[in-house]
Amino acid sequence: MASPQAAHLLATPDDVEAQFYEALRDADIGKLMAVWSDDDDIVCVHPGGPRVVGAAAIRASFEAIFERGGIPVQPEQLHRTRSLEAAVHNLVETVAIVSAEGLQQAYVVATNVYLKTTLGWRLVAHHASPGSALPPHENAEAPSTLH
Amino acid sequence: MASPQAAHLLATPDDVEAQFYEALRDADIGKLMAVWSDDDDIVCVHPGGPRVVGAAAIRASFEAIFERGGIPVQPEQLHRTRSLEAAVHNLVETVAIVSAEGLQQAYVVATNVYLKTTLGWRLVAHHASPGSALPPHENAEAPSTLH
Repeated sequence: MASPQAAHLLATPDDVEAQFYEALRDADIGKLMAVWSDDDDIVCVHPGGPRVVGAAAIRASFEAIFERGGIPVQPEQLHRTRSLEAAVHNLVETVAIVSAEGLQQAYVVATNVYLKTTLGWRLVAHHASPGSALPPHENAEAPSTLH
Repeated sequence: MASPQAAHLLATPDDVEAQFYEALRDADIGKLMAVWSDDDDIVCVHPGGPRVVGAAAIRASFEAIFERGGIPVQPEQLHRTRSLEAAVHNLVETVAIVSAEGLQQAYVVATNVYLKTTLGWRLVAHHASPGSALPPHENAEAPSTLH
């Protein structure tokens, strides 16, 4: 699936992540789907949305989102856990929203999981929590709602 | 951290997951913390809550939740991705809620990531999306909201 050039660019989990967010900003469905693993059980949970399983459904979900154009998103505040063949990234996606009140920031907490495959590092799971207008307060008091 | 008996019980990612949910139901903070990796960057995102990083903060967040007792949660509809040393589980947590309207179900989409450490399999990330009163519709139409 990935061209030799693309394979070189996906040499590390950070490369894969950079391409994922670049693809979101560019509304580039080809670039976006290239980062995902071939595994049947790849999973994408959009903010506020259901979980989407498998390449066809994930592609369709992003195509629908991209009908409105790219998403001005920047990943920040990255926390990483690594092993030889797996990387777990948790980060805050800052999204610029143009609303009636002007330009605002929305904050989405995302977990991205990368596995090292025979083709190189690939994304296997992307789980994003609904956006908030407040920057996430790391290690805040535990939420008062039941888990 | 884990006793020999506990280490035997955490022989697979499924074992770790079973213990995690058992600990939630039993409000057993010791059993719950035993499933987590020693890594500094372990992450827990509670439904609707901020992300919580590191063992001390994760422990504190669950202690606060357990003040109300255990959580009647059952993991269901599991999708797994595996490699030799990593497992990514995405599932639907069904939580029984007692409200003024009687007994209801809330549904939480969760991603649990397990890595194989020198001590055995351990949880490194738990990301849960806010509960819904409707069972998650897998592969539903893409959400209409911007990512």
